[in-house]
Amino acid sequence: MYRTHTNGQLRAQDIQQEVTLSGWVQKTRDKGFMVWVDLRDRYGVTQLIFDAQRTEKSMMEQAQKLGREFVIQVSGTVIERESKNPNMPTGDIEILVSKVTILNASLTPPFTIEDTTDGGEDLRMKYRYLDIRRNPVRENLLFRHKVSMAVRNYLSEQGFVDVETPYLIKSTPEGARDFVVPSRMNQGQFYALPQSPQTFKQLLMVGGLDKYFQIVKCFRDEDLRADRQPEFTQIDCEMAFVEQEDILNTFEGLTRHLLKEIKGVEVGAFPRMQYDDAMRLYGNDKPDIRFGMEFGELNQVAKHKEFNVFNTAELVVGIAVSGANSFTRKEIDKLIDWVRRPQVGALGMVYCRCNDDGSFKSSVDKFYDQEDLAKWAEATGAKPGDLIFVLSGQTNKVRAQLSALRMELAERLSLRKPDEFAPLWVVDFPLLELDEQTGNYHAMHHPFTSPKPGQLELLETAPGKVKANAYDLVLNGNEIGGGSIRIHDKQTQAIMLKHLGFSEQEAKEQFGFLMDAFEYGAPPHGGIAFGLDRLVAILGGQETIRDFIAFPKNNSGRDVMIDAPAPLDDTQLTELHLKLDIQE
Amino acid sequence: MYRTHTNGQLRAQDIQQEVTLSGWVQKTRDKGFMVWVDLRDRYGVTQLIFDAQRTEKSMMEQAQKLGREFVIQVSGTVIERESKNPNMPTGDIEILVSKVTILNASLTPPFTIEDTTDGGEDLRMKYRYLDIRRNPVRENLLFRHKVSMAVRNYLSEQGFVDVETPYLIKSTPEGARDFVVPSRMNQGQFYALPQSPQTFKQLLMVGGLDKYFQIVKCFRDEDLRADRQPEFTQIDCEMAFVEQEDILNTFEGLTRHLLKEIKGVEVGAFPRMQYDDAMRLYGNDKPDIRFGMEFGELNQVAKHKEFNVFNTAELVVGIAVSGANSFTRKEIDKLIDWVRRPQVGALGMVYCRCNDDGSFKSSVDKFYDQEDLAKWAEATGAKPGDLIFVLSGQTNKVRAQLSALRMELAERLSLRKPDEFAPLWVVDFPLLELDEQTGNYHAMHHPFTSPKPGQLELLETAPGKVKANAYDLVLNGNEIGGGSIRIHDKQTQAIMLKHLGFSEQEAKEQFGFLMDAFEYGAPPHGGIAFGLDRLVAILGGQETIRDFIAFPKNNSGRDVMIDAPAPLDDTQLTELHLKLDIQE
Repeated sequence: MYRTHTNGQLRAQDIQQEVTLSGWVQKTRDKGFMVWVDLRDRYGVTQLIFDAQRTEKSMMEQAQKLGREFVIQVSGTVIERESKNPNMPTGDIEILVSKVTILNASLTPPFTIEDTTDGGEDLRMKYRYLDIRRNPVRENLLFRHKVSMAVRNYLSEQGFVDVETPYLIKSTPEGARDFVVPSRMNQGQFYALPQSPQTFKQLLMVGGLDKYFQIVKCFRDEDLRADRQPEFTQIDCEMAFVEQEDILNTFEGLTRHLLKEIKGVEVGAFPRMQYDDAMRLYGNDKPDIRFGMEFGELNQVAKHKEFNVFNTAELVVGIAVSGANSFTRKEIDKLIDWVRRPQVGALGMVYCRCNDDGSFKSSVDKFYDQEDLAKWAEATGAKPGDLIFVLSGQTNKVRAQLSALRMELAERLSLRKPDEFAPLWVVDFPLLELDEQTGNYHAMHHPFTSPKPGQLELLETAPGKVKANAYDLVLNGNEIGGGSIRIHDKQTQAIMLKHLGFSEQEAKEQFGFLMDAFEYGAPPHGGIAFGLDRLVAILGGQETIRDFIAFPKNNSGRDVMIDAPAPLDDTQLTELHLKLDIQE
Repeated sequence: MYRTHTNGQLRAQDIQQEVTLSGWVQKTRDKGFMVWVDLRDRYGVTQLIFDAQRTEKSMMEQAQKLGREFVIQVSGTVIERESKNPNMPTGDIEILVSKVTILNASLTPPFTIEDTTDGGEDLRMKYRYLDIRRNPVRENLLFRHKVSMAVRNYLSEQGFVDVETPYLIKSTPEGARDFVVPSRMNQGQFYALPQSPQTFKQLLMVGGLDKYFQIVKCFRDEDLRADRQPEFTQIDCEMAFVEQEDILNTFEGLTRHLLKEIKGVEVGAFPRMQYDDAMRLYGNDKPDIRFGMEFGELNQVAKHKEFNVFNTAELVVGIAVSGANSFTRKEIDKLIDWVRRPQVGALGMVYCRCNDDGSFKSSVDKFYDQEDLAKWAEATGAKPGDLIFVLSGQTNKVRAQLSALRMELAERLSLRKPDEFAPLWVVDFPLLELDEQTGNYHAMHHPFTSPKPGQLELLETAPGKVKANAYDLVLNGNEIGGGSIRIHDKQTQAIMLKHLGFSEQEAKEQFGFLMDAFEYGAPPHGGIAFGLDRLVAILGGQETIRDFIAFPKNNSGRDVMIDAPAPLDDTQLTELHLKLDIQE
């Protein structure tokens, strides 16, 4: 047996016990006549003591030679510490060591195994197994486990069945790019890895399973943006015989349970906001509603003067920043530069100071008088002491720009508090989205999402206006889940696919099995999928998912630790009936 | 809202309640003036009644037209049944229907949705979503969910952390064939899908996570034998600072918990058997120990006469079949034919009847007298009334043949009771296995398994004799789990890989990251993996894993429902830098 206790376990009441511990040498302090060693494992740190009076000379020397991250086993007696450490759970005791065994030596680690390390991102990823020894990374992984277990137990108690759907499925060119898997046994053919178990969970509903969930890996071969992973984890759920309201209530319950169980936070009924309102008030379909700063549309009160920039704009829209009249001119100029960065893309920004005496001072005083500016203040909800920022231009673009500014200001002003949780349902999404490059419409959610009742006919005349039975769950400005009520009859599905540009032949080839299933008594059904990586990160008070994944890939989709992907043996290629087609 | 209750919920105490139900039409009985409909969902069946006296005529006609598997919603009053059905939980009541809505019609299903269906395997797989509606299939999936949850909760309570390891990893030509995934972003390079998370779980131990588990899909591109799937599920576990004994105790605990919680069966301490003993006594490393019939080796008592078949054999070995002296000559001849089938491969079989009067009658009476045969009976444990079967030949082959016969007899005699559970640890497996075709040794478990202490040197002189710290958990003649204490130092790992035929360069390329990790303080560690598909099937009293998988693939690795794998678009191939290399 390697240990009688872990390194987080021993307390004052264990004094005089003979114990055996194993773990890593966190650090040693050598005073010559005394050597202290901090012994670490997953559960904590216990201090070991060797001293010249009580410890054999050879063991003293052994202790002095222990290097950082050596793995050792010690036996000894639990004794009371002379100087107790109230910040450590084991701080009342130490171990007077009578035997040391080096279980494994260690080279000097390439970075320090401390809460704050000197290792850069690349080095930490290459030696991820050392990075995981650090408290913050380990705590994140333990936290993820806790969330997963809570999700599974809650859903299981609600009658959901965990069903494993297949990973080797069929490629559908629609949507994001699939990762594919060549089949050796079926020459010239390929499996695809699922982007989500969407069609399978719908088939489980057709199969009468009623309530399904799965915590499941999904795969998307996309050019990676920051904080995207080619493989990611979904909490995937589906229910039969439900309307939108049933789904919202069920998963509001799950989210509330997680906030309570994991974070000890009680939240009331989740507000619901129409997609159109979210866009109008926050310029964003996943608004962070923790800090106000709602948009005020200013067309009515800003397009009647000689200021052509506004007059020719489709939308003039502003936000009031609470207390920001204290910003210096230089700070304001910096923010103007910030919105003009190509990533945001505004051409300029107008501002208006709301002075404490009720007067206004704007950057466009030439065109607007105090009465005009008072109306701006009214529209944006600005009070004396605030600062109003105004952007103008094409509606979609200017909303996105002002939304970016709003979030940036919230960050700078520390309004996005990691321990405050504001969930929100955004509902009534459009069914289709116009691809401005091709002029085609594609499904905003996916092709299986049902239109609102009675709106199917609109598809012919005004496809962009059709609303869907689709909803997103937003938490603190992040989409943590999204879903829809699905189409469950063949005819509607066929109409949808036609409008998405599928020929009858293509629709049959790719989704024939689903349309067939709809002919054999498919029940009404709908569902939702949560992004587990992001959910865990947000619950953990962070926004970077990579820190909550044991072995993440970098932005080129590489695992730098195992050095994958890698070239294949020629014999493997031959067996798979493949040749490389390398472009120089 | 689609329903106020499920179809398994209503009881006598609900009589007079107004309810709304939804579900599938299981069957209708039309007496003209009365129509009964059995309405089914996941939770049960409720009887609906329409009768000419109390039901509107148009609704009567509607009820008469309801087809099998139509999805309907009904509202009505819970009333007492005239003829109660004590075999149905809802058998005391029925619903007098006041409103019917057809939610979805159904074509006539291609097979009956009944416990025993008229659909063949192929049809059931093509329409798996209909097959899942059948009680036995649905119950299997619910049972699997129950087992998964019990495993997760037990391990979590024991301090194991569920960590998700990556699915896109690196191919290693060693062992079984990998499924691979071409990388679009890394031209000419491939990921592999994991055959198991072996190296990652070891790295988690190096990373100090101490106790890891995961229920995880694994992939093997092998020519499929019956009841093998290209993707399968493992309960994957690893622990640090453990010896073999710690692992056996921990997972004996898990297995005992499952038997208790899932099956209500209490079992005592699991017996442990050395691999060599399992082979000697049962000819098999996963013996079913529920029904005795241990092998008796007869070399000492059968090789001293003129019977050359035995005299030239490496091993003469028999089993006693309890009470089988009642077998007719014809039955015995059939069994002799059975062992001579090419799948078993015996050249012939000797038998000996143990008569009630204590005398013997064998098929080789010419060579062996009563005294000889009495020794056979003693060696095999045969009693009066039994029948002894004896095979001879090369040790490995004859043991496998007699093991096959033993299992076949147990099946025929119904000795393998699905509700009786006999777990067994088989320990001290050989480290290496001789490939008789190539003459090379390969790892019996995998290249990371540690040899027994002090046996490393034997690798040079008698590689086949080296025992490993490896163990299998056997349940009712099936290997349900297997694992080992791993190598945790670089030098031993390098020696192992050398003996397995890896050049230094190959070892570094394929396992360099692991060997590097061993240099930074790797703790002693070991683990086990259970095959969840098989475990669930055995706990469910069955041996076919396919019935416990929602969407299994057929023996050609095809999903016949979605028709995968399938050809890819040319543009997809081009993006992946691949060309097909089809052999005619």
